[in-house]
Amino acid sequence: MNSRPWTAAEFEARLRAVPEHAYHDRHPFNVRMHEGTLTPEQIRGWILNRFHYQRHIPIKDAYVLAKLDTPELRRMWVRRIHDHDGRRPGEGGIERWLRLGEAAGLDRKELLSGEGVLPGVRLAVEGYVNLCRLGSPIEAVAASLTELSAPGLMRTRIDAFERHYTWISPDGLRYFQNRIFQGGQDSGEALTLVLQWARDRTDQEKAVAALAYKCDVLWSLLDAVDREYR
Amino acid sequence: MNSRPWTAAEFEARLRAVPEHAYHDRHPFNVRMHEGTLTPEQIRGWILNRFHYQRHIPIKDAYVLAKLDTPELRRMWVRRIHDHDGRRPGEGGIERWLRLGEAAGLDRKELLSGEGVLPGVRLAVEGYVNLCRLGSPIEAVAASLTELSAPGLMRTRIDAFERHYTWISPDGLRYFQNRIFQGGQDSGEALTLVLQWARDRTDQEKAVAALAYKCDVLWSLLDAVDREYR
Repeated sequence: MNSRPWTAAEFEARLRAVPEHAYHDRHPFNVRMHEGTLTPEQIRGWILNRFHYQRHIPIKDAYVLAKLDTPELRRMWVRRIHDHDGRRPGEGGIERWLRLGEAAGLDRKELLSGEGVLPGVRLAVEGYVNLCRLGSPIEAVAASLTELSAPGLMRTRIDAFERHYTWISPDGLRYFQNRIFQGGQDSGEALTLVLQWARDRTDQEKAVAALAYKCDVLWSLLDAVDREYR
Repeated sequence: MNSRPWTAAEFEARLRAVPEHAYHDRHPFNVRMHEGTLTPEQIRGWILNRFHYQRHIPIKDAYVLAKLDTPELRRMWVRRIHDHDGRRPGEGGIERWLRLGEAAGLDRKELLSGEGVLPGVRLAVEGYVNLCRLGSPIEAVAASLTELSAPGLMRTRIDAFERHYTWISPDGLRYFQNRIFQGGQDSGEALTLVLQWARDRTDQEKAVAALAYKCDVLWSLLDAVDREYR
């Protein structure tokens, strides 16, 4: 048993290696999305199911917020809730995702109803919310580090949509555009916290495991969509 | 067994009756505070112990936030977190409570350390946080309805401090002044939600019970302080 803590540099490299290998940008469904070979029905099936994930982001962030014990930390983290819920009606990531759905021909009411969300997607989202609810602060924050890879994925996606899925109005892509900056800011802040908090090897390994779990959540969500919309 | 739901008016009257009878403004310690007979040591003991409650308010509100399932509701509730944490460093209810402590001769570091917080106070605060964490949305929101009685208590308290405890600089009283408006706004919003949500008798009775529990939390906190600082 080797319980020597990793140095900050080793630990950061271990964390970064997780999404590099297991992030859902490599999932066959995303690969086909970015190659431009998905049908409108497949795109719509993905938007509808992924919306179930999107609408739970502020909920998992509220659970993270409840784990942060100073006004300073909570002031930083609460911004994520505003980013998704908006500071005023008509703003925020959830609203932008609804507009993406509308641009792809989905009805806002259908998206909001939650009908058609696949069991595998519900389980994946529930798994992530429960990690943030029941896990340690380190695990909950480390799980958010898939954001390290999000800006790159957003750029690829915008490029693919503008090139291959021109039947979706470019206005619908605002969600992806906003996440390029937000994802960079979020992951920078979260990485600083995890490096600061996880000082012994047990906590460091738990942080890496939480991030791997989160990659599994995103991957499983696409598995369910891919299986249904063949 | 009578399971007829109360009308909105009956239900509201039942809710309002709870703090009218059980709110901690009638606790002997608060009565003595407002009569002006507490010693500086007793006042400081109360400020230090009550700070343990104050610093947990945004945490219980984050748990409530996680129970609200639309951006509209969360946008409304998240303001409470800003009210206590502040939108910028140096602002917010927690900071104002620290300044009350300083005005009364307590060291900020001592308050932040949590040393000297009585076991009964810790248990009371934990009970309230856990109600918001584990209870239903109706229970968590109904428990906040002690705010219905807060503005009146704040006015009595400011008056008492300005009259009897002139050794505390009036600057220290900002927390109480701010809560007059905030308490009124918070309780109005929460009452609307509880009246809307609790439509059957079981939920209505659970709401009343949650509010009674919250009154017990505040009362027990003062019991612990009163017993220690005789």
